[in-house]
Amino acid sequence: MNLSQALLNQDRLALSRTLTHVENNSEEGRKVLSEIFPYTGKAHLIGITGAPGTGKSTLVNQLALYYRREKDHRVAVLAVDPSSPFTGGAVLGDRVRMRDLSGDPNVFIRSMASRGSLGGLAQSTSAMVQVFDAAGFDIILVETVGAGQAEVDIAKLAYTTLVVEAPGLGDDIQAIKAGILEIADILVINKADRPGVENTERALKGMLELAHPTPRVFQHHGRQMVVEAPEKDDEQENFWFTEVKRTVAKDGTGINELGKAIEKHVRFLRESNEWDKQTRIQLQSTFDSLLRETLFARFLDELSQEAYEEIMSKILKREISPWGAVEELLG
Amino acid sequence: MNLSQALLNQDRLALSRTLTHVENNSEEGRKVLSEIFPYTGKAHLIGITGAPGTGKSTLVNQLALYYRREKDHRVAVLAVDPSSPFTGGAVLGDRVRMRDLSGDPNVFIRSMASRGSLGGLAQSTSAMVQVFDAAGFDIILVETVGAGQAEVDIAKLAYTTLVVEAPGLGDDIQAIKAGILEIADILVINKADRPGVENTERALKGMLELAHPTPRVFQHHGRQMVVEAPEKDDEQENFWFTEVKRTVAKDGTGINELGKAIEKHVRFLRESNEWDKQTRIQLQSTFDSLLRETLFARFLDELSQEAYEEIMSKILKREISPWGAVEELLG
Repeated sequence: MNLSQALLNQDRLALSRTLTHVENNSEEGRKVLSEIFPYTGKAHLIGITGAPGTGKSTLVNQLALYYRREKDHRVAVLAVDPSSPFTGGAVLGDRVRMRDLSGDPNVFIRSMASRGSLGGLAQSTSAMVQVFDAAGFDIILVETVGAGQAEVDIAKLAYTTLVVEAPGLGDDIQAIKAGILEIADILVINKADRPGVENTERALKGMLELAHPTPRVFQHHGRQMVVEAPEKDDEQENFWFTEVKRTVAKDGTGINELGKAIEKHVRFLRESNEWDKQTRIQLQSTFDSLLRETLFARFLDELSQEAYEEIMSKILKREISPWGAVEELLG
Repeated sequence: MNLSQALLNQDRLALSRTLTHVENNSEEGRKVLSEIFPYTGKAHLIGITGAPGTGKSTLVNQLALYYRREKDHRVAVLAVDPSSPFTGGAVLGDRVRMRDLSGDPNVFIRSMASRGSLGGLAQSTSAMVQVFDAAGFDIILVETVGAGQAEVDIAKLAYTTLVVEAPGLGDDIQAIKAGILEIADILVINKADRPGVENTERALKGMLELAHPTPRVFQHHGRQMVVEAPEKDDEQENFWFTEVKRTVAKDGTGINELGKAIEKHVRFLRESNEWDKQTRIQLQSTFDSLLRETLFARFLDELSQEAYEEIMSKILKREISPWGAVEELLG
């Protein structure tokens, strides 16, 4: 039995091996991705992001337990850690999590440190998600650390994006919240047993009111500010107002309510046709990125190493600009 | 006089307009970049990164003042804020900074929020830096917020990378430090008048000893761990040990010493040939990225919209995988 078949049969070893192939962008990885593609498109991809210290990992563990306990769903967790591009720091994360969820054959946890080139992180994440999808996981929780471009890129892949905050992280951290709030479908105030939770909730709700709608909605409809007149098929009132939920992940408080809010969001996505739009965005991004890389790789294959070095040498002497060099090569 | 000439004559309005063109990746922007390219290659690009709350912006202000006062250098500051991809939050930063440095014609400050696509941020930064370089700025300070992939990508562009830390940011934040430390040429402990600075310095030095050398050095030599046998031209001992410096940016303490450490790093880069290696990395990255984007754009131009939609429709029905579709299109 080949690797793809074993993966589709939900063999865990095949799953591990495929994920490694895909993370390394190997030939075998691409082959499997192509073979399993007809069996993808069923999973609900949930992105979870937020600053360090918000208790994100514990929340992700609780959500995984929720989907096992309440829904009997198979759950995959992918922890993406772009802040450790050179170390294997992500491995430690695996071990810490495993205590809660190990031994359950319907849970699979994997960490991925970003080692790829520019833009590679979202593409790798997307490919890893397809593998989990084909292996029959109903829920894929993708956790990212931080609040930078990587998180925004990964949020663009997810059907539902949770942004996790916590009381008492200090005013300095507040400064970075405004940008990240705009990608939240659901805003989770974790560690809600801490003092100051009312103030945090009030501040965040204030920022939400000021913030633009999520980029998806922003492109299509507009909420407080209608940027373009709504087009015909957008006239139905399919707006999603970011929900705010309090949790205490360490003892499970609020997790059931959070789960229900996620289900409400899925219903919204299905009924408003946003689910299909999001699927198209994901697949188009994968396709465009592959096309771009393949065109580049084939061009370099055809160009001799000598010709490439010659033009780079001209650029280094500033005899020709990179823009001029591209013109010269492509005519 | 055209825009490029005005820019080379150090006209501030031309500089502003060019930066806007370049940030928007307009046709005019690309034209100017190509025209000014022969006049670039002189500036020292210094990257400054670190978590929110470390006083990074104040430190950048002080460094700008240092280069004006001690060296009579012309200084450009580019603040890159990838956490605000959708709002114009970066504008506020401009105003806050301007109090210290406004009125000096040899200082220019600009903020850039990331709006670009995947991988676009490092490329935009690189292009903005070329504009400052051609406009005669000796020192270009590029400040990034956070500790994610964007910071690492931008650090790869800089000749000298400062990572800013501060005492008392809490254990949660410590977790993200390990990855970012590895890109530091100089580690700055700012707010060094705060209690706990000794502990912070001890902890950071311990992490530095454990950490790999910077990626540049890592690729070429190795320090504690020699990954590959050194090649012939690498046999000279051109290693850079990350320097640790304490500052109190709000009153200027330690800024002169930090400035001297940066000069020492520049001498190392020049003497070890690492400066030229870094220049090649920058220019090759610009060239490859342009080539990749141009090949893709031309291919899409030649492909009809109809043909593209047809193949996307097959992908959406999962009749063909994105990998299969690329094969079909490129034969």
